Amino acid sequence: MESFEILTRRRTEFVDITDHVRQAIKRQGISQGICVVYCPHTTAAVTINENADPDVTHDILAWLNRAVPQQQPDFRHGEGNSDAHIKSSLVGSSVTLLVDQGDLVLGRWQGVYFCEFDGPRTRSVHVQALVTTTT
Amino acid sequence: MESFEILTRRRTEFVDITDHVRQAIKRQGISQGICVVYCPHTTAAVTINENADPDVTHDILAWLNRAVPQQQPDFRHGEGNSDAHIKSSLVGSSVTLLVDQGDLVLGRWQGVYFCEFDGPRTRSVHVQALVTTTT
Amino acid sequence: MESFEILTRRRTEFVDITDHVRQAIKRQGISQGICVVYCPHTTAAVTINENADPDVTHDILAWLNRAVPQQQPDFRHGEGNSDAHIKSSLVGSSVTLLVDQGDLVLGRWQGVYFCEFDGPRTRSVHVQALVTTTT
Repeated sequence: MESFEILTRRRTEFVDITDHVRQAIKRQGISQGICVVYCPHTTAAVTINENADPDVTHDILAWLNRAVPQQQPDFRHGEGNSDAHIKSSLVGSSVTLLVDQGDLVLGRWQGVYFCEFDGPRTRSVHVQALVTTTT
Repeated sequence: MESFEILTRRRTEFVDITDHVRQAIKRQGISQGICVVYCPHTTAAVTINENADPDVTHDILAWLNRAVPQQQPDFRHGEGNSDAHIKSSLVGSSVTLLVDQGDLVLGRWQGVYFCEFDGPRTRSVHVQALVTTTT
Repeated sequence: MESFEILTRRRTEFVDITDHVRQAIKRQGISQGICVVYCPHTTAAVTINENADPDVTHDILAWLNRAVPQQQPDFRHGEGNSDAHIKSSLVGSSVTLLVDQGDLVLGRWQGVYFCEFDGPRTRSVHVQALVTTTT
């Protein structure tokens, strides 16, 4: 298992971590298998989406921030970041990627994003690869 | 693969299953790898979120129940639980956890939750661990 | 890793791919382990939900299309499909299934769906199985 840190700069923000994940795969020397990218935080998430046009992640965040307002009358959690916990469970704490011929199998427009929902903070990401073995 | 049952007590409810999962990992004797926690029901889910302050899961459920009302004019499914099916696909049927040194790798505030969206019922959860092997 | 193609026929549509996945498992000769079903597209997703009553997937799509409208004033992405990217990150790019005794471990009502959010198109799906090995 490998870990790396990232520094987020806004309360909500998508950070492209594709290169970090790709380098971890190469360091672990996996030729074929899967790779789990795991977020150990409960007010953040990881997802896969387009990394060509930055307007796409802008629009995803715009929708999430409108659909899940920070303050709502029946929220009880005293830290004022219940919206971040909700977004974390909607988007998910991990993504599972495929590895083939020693590299990530990503679609043409896909990148891996760390999703900050309660920043800015220093955050950790874990990467664990598993080799395919055949019976 | 191991399975365990839980009894839910309300229509919508988060049940902390972290200890069940941790014990399954120890019984399977996995030192390093991943662990998939799988929900075989289409009106429930599993997620990872904060298990320190119970107000967090209250707020997540409050948002989900408001965002996905049980009755909506264009719903066709006759059982009246379409909202539960929707929540199941939003939150997800499984989580993938990392295992290191024989234990779950969880962030400081993270726990594993079974998410009941159409209870109360008796529910099953499956746990399957995979060992990391290096090339 | 195996891949197959599907042809979608509407802008938003759920296509049952359970049989495709089951056949891939059998071809790969996996007796026990996990199976990752991966969508390499950023305007589509995969999910697990009921495959008995087609009204269920109708209702899931009805909710998603209402909750995430195609046009919103603050969307910037010029292709007009930001809603599809948002739905992709909400539902998720992959599902992880369990395999036991050479077959998928699915709950009684569960099927695997490809979720088209910006069709009609020809789409690809990847399937990668991993064998459980015990220490």
